[in-house]
Amino acid sequence: MIDNNDNHAYLTFGRALAAQARRVIAHYGRDFKVSAKPDGSFVSEVDVAVERALRESIAARFPAHAVQGEELPATQTGAEFTWLIDPIDGTDNFVHGVPTYGCIIGLHRGDEPVMGVIDHPALNLCYSAARGLGAFCNERRIRVDDFAHVTGGEPIVALAAPANFLKTGELGLLERVQQLFPNTRGYRDCFAHTRVAQGSVAAMAEVNVSAWDLAATQVLIEEAGGVFIPVATPNGRAGYVNAVFGDAAIVRRLAALLQD
Amino acid sequence: MIDNNDNHAYLTFGRALAAQARRVIAHYGRDFKVSAKPDGSFVSEVDVAVERALRESIAARFPAHAVQGEELPATQTGAEFTWLIDPIDGTDNFVHGVPTYGCIIGLHRGDEPVMGVIDHPALNLCYSAARGLGAFCNERRIRVDDFAHVTGGEPIVALAAPANFLKTGELGLLERVQQLFPNTRGYRDCFAHTRVAQGSVAAMAEVNVSAWDLAATQVLIEEAGGVFIPVATPNGRAGYVNAVFGDAAIVRRLAALLQD
Repeated sequence: MIDNNDNHAYLTFGRALAAQARRVIAHYGRDFKVSAKPDGSFVSEVDVAVERALRESIAARFPAHAVQGEELPATQTGAEFTWLIDPIDGTDNFVHGVPTYGCIIGLHRGDEPVMGVIDHPALNLCYSAARGLGAFCNERRIRVDDFAHVTGGEPIVALAAPANFLKTGELGLLERVQQLFPNTRGYRDCFAHTRVAQGSVAAMAEVNVSAWDLAATQVLIEEAGGVFIPVATPNGRAGYVNAVFGDAAIVRRLAALLQD
Repeated sequence: MIDNNDNHAYLTFGRALAAQARRVIAHYGRDFKVSAKPDGSFVSEVDVAVERALRESIAARFPAHAVQGEELPATQTGAEFTWLIDPIDGTDNFVHGVPTYGCIIGLHRGDEPVMGVIDHPALNLCYSAARGLGAFCNERRIRVDDFAHVTGGEPIVALAAPANFLKTGELGLLERVQQLFPNTRGYRDCFAHTRVAQGSVAAMAEVNVSAWDLAATQVLIEEAGGVFIPVATPNGRAGYVNAVFGDAAIVRRLAALLQD
């Protein structure tokens, strides 16, 4: 059952966490250490500092809630509520000066997403949603059909990078999608998710990512009037998740292609 | 022979044109008409208004110079100097609320690029360069090796959309590139060019675009210390141009792949 009073409080708190993350990122500016992780992805000291700051705020306000993040060990596992954090999604872009990276903050009750924030500090765009309360870009309500008045042209579809498809040897899947949807964008990171939420992009196929990469996306898309479908690719492996989301008709076609 | 006094004047004027384009775009806000062109691409009344405004300014200041633009007929063809304008590169993104579109302004003397500006109004980022004077993001000097201190990870390569490769039936080329360079970005538009100029992305393969799409890119990349190579793909057709640009080593590998 939805308690909108609680959800409003979670939304306000989620947005405050995003603002806190911005202050940590601004504090470092261009001056921070970067290292490559064993899988070839990057982590910077900013990633860790942001996650630590957000965990402190969550522990102070909701001490019984669990927290899972990309950079630090999980706490209070098994609690009714779990916060999922990717302090800087798109560290590869962040450390290379591309402004589309974002901070992802999601709150789930059991398996159900309750609240989600994707904040783009360098773009001054904060996307947020909570169950029953709608989806927002900064203070403005957004919907996946906000650009439905722009007709003609091929639908725009965002795709995970070839590197993600290659994790399970499924580059052929990417090629099939590109043949059917040639007007693609490969933004990487949560910037693609927020493009879908506001209808700039019709749909996205996100392949072989981690749970926290999608922590805010389902509630953001659904509260914006779109659909979100987890999918299993033929070679799918434990630890990776896939999802397609956005406009219902495009999502159905993408999901069928990926699960073939 | 380079006359840096003249080039400085062209650079100042090119930046002023970009500022003028921003004012026209800001004037329309979110309220403008959009239509699809016969090739499925979009044009908005803002595209035409920007090009008209820039042409008036150029004609007043340099009446003997030629002008070629995406939306209006060429003038003074055959002149020593030619201005090339794409008033809104990435109209597909512009009309869908994606902030990565840009205004492209290039000045060529014969076949030689002299000055180039790529301005991203929604991001408040103006990239500019003139022969012998360096490349800039707003007031800051940029180079393609500005992120060379970030080591490890796969090189990031930006690619034209599948739709561009499909114009000449060369989707196989895209797939070969994706196998060799799996960490791709598909930003579309001149946003990818400016990512390469500041070293955020190692290189780009731009396929089957028009001359004005690259009008500012060669001088921007070369003045940032990178290389720019026009390439001919196996099925290449008149009216389309291709180029790879960025870091010299990656560009050589990309060029070889595309021309195979």
